[in-house]
Amino acid sequence: MSTANYGRVFAALKQGCPQEWASYTRHDFVQGLGDGSLPWDCFVHYLKQDYVFLVHFARAWSLGVVKAETLDEMKTCASTVDALVNHEMDLHVRACAEQGISEQDLFATREEVANVAYTRYVLDAGQQGDFLDLLAALAPCCFGYGEIGLRLAAEAAPETRYKDWIATYADAGYQEAMSAVGVLLDSAVVRRLGEDFQSSPRWAALQERFRMATQLEVGFWDMGLTP
Amino acid sequence: MSTANYGRVFAALKQGCPQEWASYTRHDFVQGLGDGSLPWDCFVHYLKQDYVFLVHFARAWSLGVVKAETLDEMKTCASTVDALVNHEMDLHVRACAEQGISEQDLFATREEVANVAYTRYVLDAGQQGDFLDLLAALAPCCFGYGEIGLRLAAEAAPETRYKDWIATYADAGYQEAMSAVGVLLDSAVVRRLGEDFQSSPRWAALQERFRMATQLEVGFWDMGLTP
Amino acid sequence: MSTANYGRVFAALKQGCPQEWASYTRHDFVQGLGDGSLPWDCFVHYLKQDYVFLVHFARAWSLGVVKAETLDEMKTCASTVDALVNHEMDLHVRACAEQGISEQDLFATREEVANVAYTRYVLDAGQQGDFLDLLAALAPCCFGYGEIGLRLAAEAAPETRYKDWIATYADAGYQEAMSAVGVLLDSAVVRRLGEDFQSSPRWAALQERFRMATQLEVGFWDMGLTP
Amino acid sequence: MSTANYGRVFAALKQGCPQEWASYTRHDFVQGLGDGSLPWDCFVHYLKQDYVFLVHFARAWSLGVVKAETLDEMKTCASTVDALVNHEMDLHVRACAEQGISEQDLFATREEVANVAYTRYVLDAGQQGDFLDLLAALAPCCFGYGEIGLRLAAEAAPETRYKDWIATYADAGYQEAMSAVGVLLDSAVVRRLGEDFQSSPRWAALQERFRMATQLEVGFWDMGLTP
Repeated sequence: MSTANYGRVFAALKQGCPQEWASYTRHDFVQGLGDGSLPWDCFVHYLKQDYVFLVHFARAWSLGVVKAETLDEMKTCASTVDALVNHEMDLHVRACAEQGISEQDLFATREEVANVAYTRYVLDAGQQGDFLDLLAALAPCCFGYGEIGLRLAAEAAPETRYKDWIATYADAGYQEAMSAVGVLLDSAVVRRLGEDFQSSPRWAALQERFRMATQLEVGFWDMGLTP
Repeated sequence: MSTANYGRVFAALKQGCPQEWASYTRHDFVQGLGDGSLPWDCFVHYLKQDYVFLVHFARAWSLGVVKAETLDEMKTCASTVDALVNHEMDLHVRACAEQGISEQDLFATREEVANVAYTRYVLDAGQQGDFLDLLAALAPCCFGYGEIGLRLAAEAAPETRYKDWIATYADAGYQEAMSAVGVLLDSAVVRRLGEDFQSSPRWAALQERFRMATQLEVGFWDMGLTP
Repeated sequence: MSTANYGRVFAALKQGCPQEWASYTRHDFVQGLGDGSLPWDCFVHYLKQDYVFLVHFARAWSLGVVKAETLDEMKTCASTVDALVNHEMDLHVRACAEQGISEQDLFATREEVANVAYTRYVLDAGQQGDFLDLLAALAPCCFGYGEIGLRLAAEAAPETRYKDWIATYADAGYQEAMSAVGVLLDSAVVRRLGEDFQSSPRWAALQERFRMATQLEVGFWDMGLTP
Repeated sequence: MSTANYGRVFAALKQGCPQEWASYTRHDFVQGLGDGSLPWDCFVHYLKQDYVFLVHFARAWSLGVVKAETLDEMKTCASTVDALVNHEMDLHVRACAEQGISEQDLFATREEVANVAYTRYVLDAGQQGDFLDLLAALAPCCFGYGEIGLRLAAEAAPETRYKDWIATYADAGYQEAMSAVGVLLDSAVVRRLGEDFQSSPRWAALQERFRMATQLEVGFWDMGLTP
């Protein structure tokens, strides 16, 4: 599998900010993961920040359960929390353990500004708005990592030291989970805005949530390059 | 002034649950305020519960500031908090002071179930949904008291011992504040759902918020009759 | 196993409102489950309301993940959401399916006031306070059902038609989950209030959260008896 | 008046992170306001970002009303929202109007990362924790601007073009409002943690909230220097 299909709403949101999307998914940090040129200390620095990111990202998906309006919405959000807390964080824990960094140390990592800005923006999108505002802010991380994983798995030199990272996101389990999130996003948007969702007065606000979160992803990679 | 105009959205919401609206605004408790037949101990019991109600209602309007998306939305919500905390509660404080009940005692009144259900339902509408979900749940109290105040002021025997209560809600200041809330509701709904808001997929959910809060008002009056 | 141990904090909270605790765990509804005398239509009515209760209870446990401050706190809350959404609700779904009631119908059950009051009170405890306020309001349902399940399993006539219900809460899996919640509660309280938690100025507020939620449980059983 | 007294809790929190506090209140941006050497385009850039900051800061103080537990706590928070929305923002609106920037333009200013990080961190402190977590994150802005205003008013060359800005924060009205916030903070902390609040297990977490928000203030000034 080398192309992803995460649904109609994601496709529309991505089309609404093509420059930011490219800056995020084709960032130098990403290219360095793919060809193995990324310095190791940048990667470890990134992993530690990303671990704390995932803590708050799991909080945001849990807020999704609080804000959901159907049983299916609740179940998909709850499964995503489980996947984050019990699976995705494992890569970080194992990779950091090899560097002598314990999980308690990871949890206590002091967050950098780019990290704080991103996760708290997402959490406040949920506090200020509704389920759609939250999903629009959660989407860039979910689907962007999915796209990056698939592309690098197809392109990357097999000997790159970052092949575990790539495999985590190219993995069928991750891709299936993200497809389920795509189904959730489509059905949640259609349920509230109708089939012709882009003509809803709310669309511009959701697009801006998605664009801002994508921009904050770019800042996160920038941070990764300056340990 | 004997008829109120609180805007298009309120008119539509009220039309969507005429039976509940009548049960609320024509409740025996209300009739007893109007003709003076309501037993005094019922009134005092109601006032104490209503004071605690207003505490949580002010919390809910403050949540409105948290969830607003425009400056005008923020300002109207903030003004309403101020009106509640610094004005409407005064009637309760003065009336209860005459009964030897202090404001600290009022604040510590043990809430009855009908009271808890209503205010926490409104607060959770804001936590679960967006600004519109919150407004739809806040609306019945605001506009219902406005309608009741105007009607009783026009109808009530002048010698009813509840004329202060009636005057509080028939008062031009209260009516103007509620008209401003009506303008807020109309503009907030049009901004998010469009001019043809009743054809939005979200309308049914907002209607249900309004209906439920109206039903909870009926329960509040029922509670008032059984001190 | 016939006595439960859910930790020190729960023991202290329960001791702080013995009358409410007895009214809840020894309620006529409970006795009727144990000896089989509860009318079936009361049980079905209760099951439908309880299903909607569990939806909001799962939302409240998810809010726990949002409010947690340690990884262990997050994991226990997330596991509890999973247990609620994917296991405990199954009893309700299966029992109701036998009555010809689908899960979508269950989800759409119109909530009664006693139900609204309870779940929204818990959710607002989390919105207004911190992790401890939320846990104190969640505790009575968790541990009360655990106690009731164990007691009825030891006492109940084996032929009671409610033996499935009893088995659900006497079940080792449920008991282990509640023991884990007891460990969570103890460690969360000690972490924030210290070992001598009952001398903290916050204790009275937590005790009141627990007492109120217990009182709302009594109201829930009362509702169950009047379908 | 040249020294401020904002209470015991603030004094303790400030003492807990002296380096960050000095970096914030003695920042080059601040010195440039005092001696007039700050480039005008830096100031206008800052004013626009600060306007959006105040929007979210008002949201955070409104969240304070939602989370308050006493009538006095509610009233002080509500008054602060009013002061922000109806007074402090005026300086920004007037100064920007002179530059041909309307209030609607101000409201729509695209937020920079340092700005997003700060306000959303504060809002999430309230979402994750209780009233104290929120206050600890709100405190650095309130009291820091108070200290800066008083110091610059005492030191600054009278001809600095930034004398209006300095006067806004040295103003008796602002200082009284901040003294009231200091009283609120002291009473809120004592109410929940006791007189010996620094020995509470929660103190370290509150200190970290305060330190982080102070650090985010430093980042805000840094942003101001790079328009």
